[in-house]
Amino acid sequence: MKAAIFKGPGAVEVGERPEPVIQEPTDAVVRVVLGCVCGSDLWYFRGESPHAAGSIGHEFIGIVEQAGANVRSVRLGDLVVAPFIYSDMTCPHCRNGSTISCPAGGSFGNGTIDGGQGQAVRVPQAGGTLVRVPGSGHSDEVLRSLLALSDVMSTGQHAAVMAGVKEGDTVAVVGDGAVGLCAVLAARRLGAERVIALSRNPARQKVASEFGATDIIEARGDEAVQAVLELTGGTGADAALECVGTGQSIATAAAIARPGSVIGIVGVPHGEVPFTGTFFRNIGWRGGPAPARVYIPGLLDDVLDGTINPGLVFDYETDLDHIADAYRAMDERRAIKSLVRVGGI
Amino acid sequence: MKAAIFKGPGAVEVGERPEPVIQEPTDAVVRVVLGCVCGSDLWYFRGESPHAAGSIGHEFIGIVEQAGANVRSVRLGDLVVAPFIYSDMTCPHCRNGSTISCPAGGSFGNGTIDGGQGQAVRVPQAGGTLVRVPGSGHSDEVLRSLLALSDVMSTGQHAAVMAGVKEGDTVAVVGDGAVGLCAVLAARRLGAERVIALSRNPARQKVASEFGATDIIEARGDEAVQAVLELTGGTGADAALECVGTGQSIATAAAIARPGSVIGIVGVPHGEVPFTGTFFRNIGWRGGPAPARVYIPGLLDDVLDGTINPGLVFDYETDLDHIADAYRAMDERRAIKSLVRVGGI
Repeated sequence: MKAAIFKGPGAVEVGERPEPVIQEPTDAVVRVVLGCVCGSDLWYFRGESPHAAGSIGHEFIGIVEQAGANVRSVRLGDLVVAPFIYSDMTCPHCRNGSTISCPAGGSFGNGTIDGGQGQAVRVPQAGGTLVRVPGSGHSDEVLRSLLALSDVMSTGQHAAVMAGVKEGDTVAVVGDGAVGLCAVLAARRLGAERVIALSRNPARQKVASEFGATDIIEARGDEAVQAVLELTGGTGADAALECVGTGQSIATAAAIARPGSVIGIVGVPHGEVPFTGTFFRNIGWRGGPAPARVYIPGLLDDVLDGTINPGLVFDYETDLDHIADAYRAMDERRAIKSLVRVGGI
Repeated sequence: MKAAIFKGPGAVEVGERPEPVIQEPTDAVVRVVLGCVCGSDLWYFRGESPHAAGSIGHEFIGIVEQAGANVRSVRLGDLVVAPFIYSDMTCPHCRNGSTISCPAGGSFGNGTIDGGQGQAVRVPQAGGTLVRVPGSGHSDEVLRSLLALSDVMSTGQHAAVMAGVKEGDTVAVVGDGAVGLCAVLAARRLGAERVIALSRNPARQKVASEFGATDIIEARGDEAVQAVLELTGGTGADAALECVGTGQSIATAAAIARPGSVIGIVGVPHGEVPFTGTFFRNIGWRGGPAPARVYIPGLLDDVLDGTINPGLVFDYETDLDHIADAYRAMDERRAIKSLVRVGGI
């Protein structure tokens, strides 16, 4: 089969991989319909973090093509959404909602198992992992939104849930990447009355507004902090959602959060977390890699009934043969997020 | 009036201070009945942190002796509990439950305003700050427990509330000082089924057991971590309560918390918080100085009806003339917490 192959920094090529087959009775093989490129894929593409050479990509939707004897929750022919981490959903961590810590779990496209940027994927723990999409004949718009549940929308949701966003809150979102934009959507979905998005990019501002942002702040750093404080009468946001992970974005989130609030942090922290300062203001930090599997069923219902449309984050698309273009569009910041059309439904 | 005076590291003496008087219509003057020494008082007593010379102490209960024209929630003659921070309870931060960030607030015994280790205290924002104790003729046992609400019990409660302790949880408490012991009590009060206390001191183990600890672990560091993991079937605690603030205790709390949980941290962090490691396990950190004023009413009800008895943390007592002994008993670790009898009720 064809698949995107990582050969080293800057080098993502289309290559051949063996067709995946069932290896364990808990496996399924999914024929990929749509895949996409994640902001985190850019780390190794840019050579900023190491990654095994080979098949890549951890976000996909597709059709179940083979299922092991112990896979009961999905059937051949089902359209499914794959969370970016597989997990058994039966261990104590999964039962606690912390699927990313499942001892039987793992990630796609990490050098040992195929990724979602290819024609098919063997999914371990498929019964726990895959979420079946009910109905048929879904529009392309719906399919794009379902693909967004695989990672970015679930991650934005995680930021909002971890920060405890509730009805009537004023929420500030740091980061206008696909995750930050989805965090805007998630905050509104959880009832936030006011969502302040920090963005200087007109295309991203537009999506933020479509996702329900009530205020857009174009400033950065201290100037952005002052602007959020002014918008909140000097109090700060009821919830700050940190969706970047740099030192500056973390510092901004800490400064705009009101005393007693929780910062939902989903940007992998590459900068210092100013813990002592937030401690004395009773500001907490919660987050991490999203347990997407936990969020997908609820988000999926909202996609199917048209309440949310996270697929709007895909503003570039191509096919598997042009996967390198999908990476370059994001690397060069021409795209928020690149969608890759792989197979028919 | 007589009051404890801090003159420099190791030097706490009884001295004279002017009788406090109403300065603002929102002030009250409280005649102190019971005061006590806080673990945090030892920092400056030991010369480990700076502190202004003068009147000290931030925990007290007493009788309202004077009240300004705008003080309506307490009356002359009322027995009151003072939280360790005063606050107006009307500003946005107070209304959000974050009294420690009240712009009109401040702390007692900090060099500008008298402390609770003296015969009387001027309490700013008295209407918001002081909590009236209903009834009369309270036993000495009840009075001691009411005094504990001023700081340590409210702080233990804060750790448990911030960690989201709920019915049926397994909670692990790091720290066997007065706050850690109160955190055991708070966790049980919030419905924890199992509370694991880390303590190597028989006197403190005894109080922990009386407060409802179901398991005592005598080990420290890696050995303690292994013991908690064994007790929890390898999963970790649903909530770890960090009540010390050293690098080792913070690391222990991080290692015994289960994925997806929140560490309630009330020990002022003097060591590094291993944020990246907890991020990838979806473990959050919440805490800070307790908004005692918010917790006191509920805890007070439970003290009065005999449900909780946090006064058990006082295992040494003396009078104001012997305040230096109260400090030394704690400094030399002969006492968990020293009570100081100041005036009659």
